[in-house]
Amino acid sequence: MLSEIITIGDELLIGQVIDTNSAFIAKQLNKIGVSVYQITSVQDEKTHILQALKDAENRVDIIILTGGLGPTKDDITKKTIAEYFNDTLVRDASVLENIENIWKNYVRQTLLQVNKDQALVPSKAQVLMNTLGTAPGMWMEKGEKAFISLPGVPFEMKALITNSVIPKIKDKYKCPFILHKTLLVYGLGESTLAARIEAWEDALPEHIKLAYLPSLGKMRLRISSKGFDRAKVETEVQDQINKVLPLIKDEFFGYEDEDGNEEAVIGNRLTKIEKTLAIAESCTGGKLAELFTANPGASKYLKGGVVTYSTQSKIDVLGIDEALINKYSVVSSQVAEAMAIKVKNLYKSDFAIATTGNAGPSKGDSQAEIGTVFIAIANNNGVFSQEFKFGSPRARVINKAVNKALELLQKEIFKN
Amino acid sequence: MLSEIITIGDELLIGQVIDTNSAFIAKQLNKIGVSVYQITSVQDEKTHILQALKDAENRVDIIILTGGLGPTKDDITKKTIAEYFNDTLVRDASVLENIENIWKNYVRQTLLQVNKDQALVPSKAQVLMNTLGTAPGMWMEKGEKAFISLPGVPFEMKALITNSVIPKIKDKYKCPFILHKTLLVYGLGESTLAARIEAWEDALPEHIKLAYLPSLGKMRLRISSKGFDRAKVETEVQDQINKVLPLIKDEFFGYEDEDGNEEAVIGNRLTKIEKTLAIAESCTGGKLAELFTANPGASKYLKGGVVTYSTQSKIDVLGIDEALINKYSVVSSQVAEAMAIKVKNLYKSDFAIATTGNAGPSKGDSQAEIGTVFIAIANNNGVFSQEFKFGSPRARVINKAVNKALELLQKEIFKN
Repeated sequence: MLSEIITIGDELLIGQVIDTNSAFIAKQLNKIGVSVYQITSVQDEKTHILQALKDAENRVDIIILTGGLGPTKDDITKKTIAEYFNDTLVRDASVLENIENIWKNYVRQTLLQVNKDQALVPSKAQVLMNTLGTAPGMWMEKGEKAFISLPGVPFEMKALITNSVIPKIKDKYKCPFILHKTLLVYGLGESTLAARIEAWEDALPEHIKLAYLPSLGKMRLRISSKGFDRAKVETEVQDQINKVLPLIKDEFFGYEDEDGNEEAVIGNRLTKIEKTLAIAESCTGGKLAELFTANPGASKYLKGGVVTYSTQSKIDVLGIDEALINKYSVVSSQVAEAMAIKVKNLYKSDFAIATTGNAGPSKGDSQAEIGTVFIAIANNNGVFSQEFKFGSPRARVINKAVNKALELLQKEIFKN
Repeated sequence: MLSEIITIGDELLIGQVIDTNSAFIAKQLNKIGVSVYQITSVQDEKTHILQALKDAENRVDIIILTGGLGPTKDDITKKTIAEYFNDTLVRDASVLENIENIWKNYVRQTLLQVNKDQALVPSKAQVLMNTLGTAPGMWMEKGEKAFISLPGVPFEMKALITNSVIPKIKDKYKCPFILHKTLLVYGLGESTLAARIEAWEDALPEHIKLAYLPSLGKMRLRISSKGFDRAKVETEVQDQINKVLPLIKDEFFGYEDEDGNEEAVIGNRLTKIEKTLAIAESCTGGKLAELFTANPGASKYLKGGVVTYSTQSKIDVLGIDEALINKYSVVSSQVAEAMAIKVKNLYKSDFAIATTGNAGPSKGDSQAEIGTVFIAIANNNGVFSQEFKFGSPRARVINKAVNKALELLQKEIFKN
């Protein structure tokens, strides 16, 4: 069972918007055994969309389109699909009612003809009701192939995928079970890891796939398989994991959760052991706090944090001793550790992380080499810190510091 | 001059990784007048990559590939390109030297054969030296068409695009000038805006394109044109902007900067007027601080912030009066305003933003309806706040709150 995702919109092709929709859709399709063969992004241009539909129809069984369903003149997806199916647009009463409701309850402006025209759908389409917006999802079929058109607004698209598209695909198609297990491995480069596990990799059965995903400061090793017998797929993959783990026992750190979200793993652990966290950030600038609070339930374990970006604020807000800063510099293990202790006390938490560093491109209040970052972890037993040289550019330094801080914290809380 | 971006990697097709490379590349190509006709993501699979290369060659002039250049067995891009060009791989001495240097200075592990093999390149390729990693960029030609293969690691790819690919394209091809101007419009829905400017839009010359980009809480109106006479393109677009501005004079807010980055606009303004900012975040959880600190030069105006996520931390860290919270609830204009004033005093800044709200999915320490957010702005003259109902889900509430906070702050600092 193969699918293709076609994302439509000039904003993607000029780089104004990053296509985050495709990864979400691909992940959801994978969970129900539908492989994504290709992702294609095309402009809001009729002949190009028609060609993309034709090419996709030749390649795959399920085609999911996003974007180009708005009420303005640059949105042409719906008309183009109707043309592809030699179909005409008809007014759908339930969609019109939904639009009128949204207008009455939220928009409270005049309902214009272009808004009412959002209720026009190809006569052959099954409507997938979009209660979060005015553009309906549409499901069309051509023989055994399905064409599904969804709005490009991410939260509308996500609701439609979850509530309508996935159940309908499961209903219509017999899909295999796809399993991905991703092992987190720290401290080995890609090629060193590959050399270490080479014999195991060479002996993998043809249908079990292996991928190396290097990420700043860690490696992810993904083992994938699929089949119609779920228990067999799971056993086979687990058997292979059991063989590889002894080869990486000092570097294996755990499994990536389904959403690739390390901070959720940490949050779940803290919630389970009923411990709390506080964060003091300098060079990471709030990114650590933001990652945790993006997950529901963060209030169970996250007391909060400070972004003490300027040196003066480390003194004023955290109460770091100015003499300590003058003696060791603001980018130092001493200051990182003091930040972790102070923020832990300030928020009365069980754990604390602190970052201080020089992300560049120019040097700030410290003469430390650009890319230097100190990360400290405090718990109820004490505090420790480590120095890192993350090089450049700025975004990479910040991301590496965030990843490393999560790694250190994760190791610490799983000890307890 | 048309181009296509082909991103290669199973991780993209299973949704494990979001393709951020394409947007970066597309933006850089656009700046030098190269339009991106299509973006295609394919698996690490030989026949599929060969087909994608063939299709792209039929469509465009310049083909940029990223990914699949690592040292492990799942990386097959280089061999596949060699096959596409009926070419063989030869060892490049300068690349080998670069690899050895990286190993000596950074990796400090044994240099394995697979690492040395990173120096193998198709004999017809021009090497684009990648000093940040071991996989070289490669430039190949077929008639007038260029095929450029780059590593998928974002910071390596970015350096190669900026330092090698863009200069080489400018050198080889005569490119037109492409201009995009994006107007930020607040307070009008997509269809209302379209109705308001309909006559103007209908009268636009064929070669000037218009796009509506709705985003949470604001509209972006993009006007694009291109041509070989830069002055003429600029004048034509400016003339159209001069005609449309009177139609939206109360809602027009400014231009989006080149990188679509509102916080950079705010940061530049604050730096220019020599004012500083502090941030107190509850429901936005550090995201506002993180957006500002992601930009170089943030230390010039950002004093820092607090993430007072728990109610207790608002009392302990910011010194909010507990009686005030008990009287009005933690999600209230009174508490938002108190947070803004307190954080402004704590960091001794000129401006402060504060957010407090209930992002859901469950209610926290407040009984406020899920989606309710209060945003307060303080300056040296006082403080004000506004209440918003952002609905659900959580990620949308947080993003809307962040956008609205930036909007309110932007309006405030441009007044001064």
